[in-house]
Amino acid sequence: MDEIFTRTSVRDYRPDPVEPEKVELILRAAMQAPSARNQQAWEFVVVDDRGLIEGLSTASPYAGPVGRAPMAVVVMGDRDRMTVPQMWEQDLGACTENLMLEARHLGLGTVWIGIAPVQDRMDRISDLLGLPGNMMPFCIVAVGYPREEPVPHASRYDPSRVHRNGF
Amino acid sequence: MDEIFTRTSVRDYRPDPVEPEKVELILRAAMQAPSARNQQAWEFVVVDDRGLIEGLSTASPYAGPVGRAPMAVVVMGDRDRMTVPQMWEQDLGACTENLMLEARHLGLGTVWIGIAPVQDRMDRISDLLGLPGNMMPFCIVAVGYPREEPVPHASRYDPSRVHRNGF
Repeated sequence: MDEIFTRTSVRDYRPDPVEPEKVELILRAAMQAPSARNQQAWEFVVVDDRGLIEGLSTASPYAGPVGRAPMAVVVMGDRDRMTVPQMWEQDLGACTENLMLEARHLGLGTVWIGIAPVQDRMDRISDLLGLPGNMMPFCIVAVGYPREEPVPHASRYDPSRVHRNGF
Repeated sequence: MDEIFTRTSVRDYRPDPVEPEKVELILRAAMQAPSARNQQAWEFVVVDDRGLIEGLSTASPYAGPVGRAPMAVVVMGDRDRMTVPQMWEQDLGACTENLMLEARHLGLGTVWIGIAPVQDRMDRISDLLGLPGNMMPFCIVAVGYPREEPVPHASRYDPSRVHRNGF
């Protein structure tokens, strides 16, 4: 699948806004992800306000690229919807990957900025966006049209990581 | 992207084995996933031994479908490779989603059986496969050709989960 093998982190973007139809499609892809007992405990904030984008870009030491993007999606877990709370992070990992692959499919670039479970990063985002206590910031995905055509990674396949019928 | 929107859990399979080229492709897709600081702390056991398949099918109360599959992939985290250990589960969530989407792309069905962080499920798999202490079982993915053509889920898109520039 081309999207899986050509997706790469994009950290510099053209200023062009992302079309609303594309924003909806990446969110549709995110929400189609599997989740533990189908808990679907996700929620999203789409951010394109420049002041908030700047705020997000300092929410983690690695969030700088967010400041160069026309928009970002903050992916969150809703504690009140979690029926399998211990699996919320793996669920949202799959959800975020769907969002990024769909973005790649649409010609958009993304980079995943890890937030949870680092409490001070989570707190900064909660403060910035005025999140209620049940909303747990999971990650930031910067989204935009890549300034340069992304160069896919070399294959990361390592056959020594694969075992057969035991270890 | 069709694979995202048509993937669904498959719990019953034809007995036909999965071609080795397809097994390699799903593992290639898994290992192409993004990970925190690119730690790539994943490792895999491909299981097609019937006794081990049966053993895996009792590793969790939800693992029954594994017993109807010709093979399974046990996705693991390698603690010794984790440079950002607190993010290993979200990393492997993205890795597992890649594996499942590539399987769908190849006409295969899968179902994700959650294992980590439930200690007794992890322990059962470690015992069954003889894993060293640094290998942390994350999930089981049953893999095979679907017995019946999978019916995609209705859309899970819920616009009330999307907020704009704050909450």
